[in-house]
Amino acid sequence: MKPDEAVAALAAIVGTEHVVTDPAQLAPNLSDWRGRYHGRALCKVSPADTAQVAAVVRLCAAADLKLVPQGGNTGLCGGAIPAGPDQVLISLGRLRRIRAITADTITVEAGCTLAEVQQAARAAGKLFPLSLAAEGTASIGGNLATNAGGVQVLRYGNARELCLGLEVVLADGRVWDGLRALRKDNTGYDLKQLFIGSEGTLGIITAAVLKLFPAAKSRVTAWVAVCDPAAAVALLDRLRAQCDERVTAFELIGRTALDLVLAHIPDSREPLAGRPAWSVLCELSDSSSEAGLEGCVEQVLADALADGEVLDATLAASAAQAAAFWRLRETIPEAQRIEGPSIKHDIAVPVASIAAFLARCDAALQAAFPGLRIACFGHIGDGNLHYNPSQPAKAANEALMADAEAVHRIVYDLVHAFDGSISAEHGVGQLRRAEIVRYKSPVEIELMRVVKQALDPANRLNPGKVV
Amino acid sequence: MKPDEAVAALAAIVGTEHVVTDPAQLAPNLSDWRGRYHGRALCKVSPADTAQVAAVVRLCAAADLKLVPQGGNTGLCGGAIPAGPDQVLISLGRLRRIRAITADTITVEAGCTLAEVQQAARAAGKLFPLSLAAEGTASIGGNLATNAGGVQVLRYGNARELCLGLEVVLADGRVWDGLRALRKDNTGYDLKQLFIGSEGTLGIITAAVLKLFPAAKSRVTAWVAVCDPAAAVALLDRLRAQCDERVTAFELIGRTALDLVLAHIPDSREPLAGRPAWSVLCELSDSSSEAGLEGCVEQVLADALADGEVLDATLAASAAQAAAFWRLRETIPEAQRIEGPSIKHDIAVPVASIAAFLARCDAALQAAFPGLRIACFGHIGDGNLHYNPSQPAKAANEALMADAEAVHRIVYDLVHAFDGSISAEHGVGQLRRAEIVRYKSPVEIELMRVVKQALDPANRLNPGKVV
Repeated sequence: MKPDEAVAALAAIVGTEHVVTDPAQLAPNLSDWRGRYHGRALCKVSPADTAQVAAVVRLCAAADLKLVPQGGNTGLCGGAIPAGPDQVLISLGRLRRIRAITADTITVEAGCTLAEVQQAARAAGKLFPLSLAAEGTASIGGNLATNAGGVQVLRYGNARELCLGLEVVLADGRVWDGLRALRKDNTGYDLKQLFIGSEGTLGIITAAVLKLFPAAKSRVTAWVAVCDPAAAVALLDRLRAQCDERVTAFELIGRTALDLVLAHIPDSREPLAGRPAWSVLCELSDSSSEAGLEGCVEQVLADALADGEVLDATLAASAAQAAAFWRLRETIPEAQRIEGPSIKHDIAVPVASIAAFLARCDAALQAAFPGLRIACFGHIGDGNLHYNPSQPAKAANEALMADAEAVHRIVYDLVHAFDGSISAEHGVGQLRRAEIVRYKSPVEIELMRVVKQALDPANRLNPGKVV
Repeated sequence: MKPDEAVAALAAIVGTEHVVTDPAQLAPNLSDWRGRYHGRALCKVSPADTAQVAAVVRLCAAADLKLVPQGGNTGLCGGAIPAGPDQVLISLGRLRRIRAITADTITVEAGCTLAEVQQAARAAGKLFPLSLAAEGTASIGGNLATNAGGVQVLRYGNARELCLGLEVVLADGRVWDGLRALRKDNTGYDLKQLFIGSEGTLGIITAAVLKLFPAAKSRVTAWVAVCDPAAAVALLDRLRAQCDERVTAFELIGRTALDLVLAHIPDSREPLAGRPAWSVLCELSDSSSEAGLEGCVEQVLADALADGEVLDATLAASAAQAAAFWRLRETIPEAQRIEGPSIKHDIAVPVASIAAFLARCDAALQAAFPGLRIACFGHIGDGNLHYNPSQPAKAANEALMADAEAVHRIVYDLVHAFDGSISAEHGVGQLRRAEIVRYKSPVEIELMRVVKQALDPANRLNPGKVV
């Protein structure tokens, strides 16, 4: 089948208006939002439902075309960007129905944005806890395909833990209906686990059953100055020992990251005096309106203050103040962007090793690149930090960017030495594909390839990504 | 290699005293504890560590022998029973070290009993929440291989959710070291998910990193009479709305099951008068000693009583009374055994469908087998019930047992109609292997076979189980 015949055949499946070949119209789908990748594709096709997705996959198989699934295109590793004239970009954006909602589950189609899923849960008086900066654009299908994380993983888990069932179009166009709404099912291999986090390389997720939780009726948000990352981890242990799983979010924010926000984001104001080197933003929530959370948090903070782990702390007095605290955290990426380039890392180490890792890594980078500053912030309760070095001066920073490979090597070698992960929540995509081969054992890479070969023997799905 | 040469070669790897061929000595390992399966094996071999497990697997590959891994041999579906003279039973019982413990993880070898893991966590002031009747004998490796459930899944999840990393010996004898202690790691396919719940058919789990939680410092245990299963589910919703994730266990116990305990278990006494048709045993716990749990539970029960959902309720006044409540629940299987045979089911349906399912299934069974009584009990918060019919009279019961297939068909057809699971927590093993083919889609069975073929192409690991 010639390319234009294939485009016509795709149009016959989804309707002419849902196939795009015009370069100008295609452009937004061919670049990632950080602007790091600029790809190519035969066309973009937007099926309306699962049956059309399956028909598109079968057509591509017959025409020997590759398929690159794309949701909201908010990924950070180039995982949804096609890279050749034999690749069809398949957008899930029209699969947008909320199919069902019960007291403890919601069944959604892949193209729903995360915010739409959250909103549907809220409208039913429930909570869908996955939450991340791109939630207004990111699709739930993409969240599942990349096993998205975010600020409430500490309590509720990644996308993987929030998923009970999946519907998936396989590489040969068959549909696997695994849309089960069961808390327990031990009737064989848990196949959904293969597709979650595999970035569209093993199948195309078209719908999912997700867990719902009781909505929070009380909430405490605290901004805390701590002396160092070890003190932050100790504070987390104290909070859990006294407030149990009500600790919903626990974010570490280093001085450099906070200073960038204060410098670049209008109306940002530091909640505490004294310019502490490290701050913690933590939130606790409970399904009861009379949970006594505030008293519990105040007691823990008073104890930690008395023991010298905490330097100062303040509880948000209103929802508006809590939102202002969160804005300081959530605008860090934007503040970094305004300041100029930096070298991004999304790493994890065991929680117990965070302090030791940071001490070693900071020292190693400073030795190699004197004067470096490191924006360090993130989900310390999960052992996951965003760790982004740059040079304050423009020329020095340009030199640093040219030496990004050397910076990566120092950081990733140490992450590896601490039994950590070089991609804690952003995935592999194109960006980290060579890196994982460097750090994973040959046995593990071979196992991944065996799985890929078994589920997609023709390498039709998202080629060049992950493995 | 002749059989006796293989036995000698295995003895050279693990030591002569760790290879058993004597039939009398082998017998306990060749029968499951319900006495349903009586298998055969060339020998039992007990390696001391992961390297010896790997060497045994390589030897078996060279000798064209099959391998059947066995932990505590407490499985209920014959998954650990070998079935032929070309099968080597590999016992993990000597891999028994607690390798490491941190504030939030524990690294254990597969042969540790679940109780030993719980105890090691407790000694460190933490909680490992997996808990089930066989915990004194069941091994953690077996728990992971079968994705074990139990009474605290509601809050903490199955074995799968409690596992951060695995070490696995593959079908060709290579070792996959996936012993990561990370809360987040998106560097490719999450391979541990393949091995968890695959009942030893894809690899042999030799060690695991597990999550630890804050220990409970306060606890409320309540026995509640409810009018029907729908009222039990409504009570669970109320408790979660007021007490959030502190609802740790929520068990439903039907009249028939409770009567069997009262008849057969010495010193058992019903906590409430009035012989309610359904009882709920629920437990809430918190890491703080001042959690106000009791007031919270009392308020919820008072509201539910006022609304007619709850008929009567009592809180355990002491740890001894709480233990007595739990004994009523935990001795149901023993009471059933004393009473005589019954037809066992371990099923799940979506929580929202439980009441409708039970009404339909009870009626269908009564229509087909008049006079039947059904011991129904289990983890209603997970949608998971043990549902075991028998006939009160001996002769009628013998006739029923002969007709077990017809009973299964009624129950499983309805489970299937309600999008449920015919094996919620016990797994597949030999017992449900034909059943899953009946109820799963051909696509799903084919996917399972593709995965099996990819990871164990020679069908060397636990042949005849699961798929």
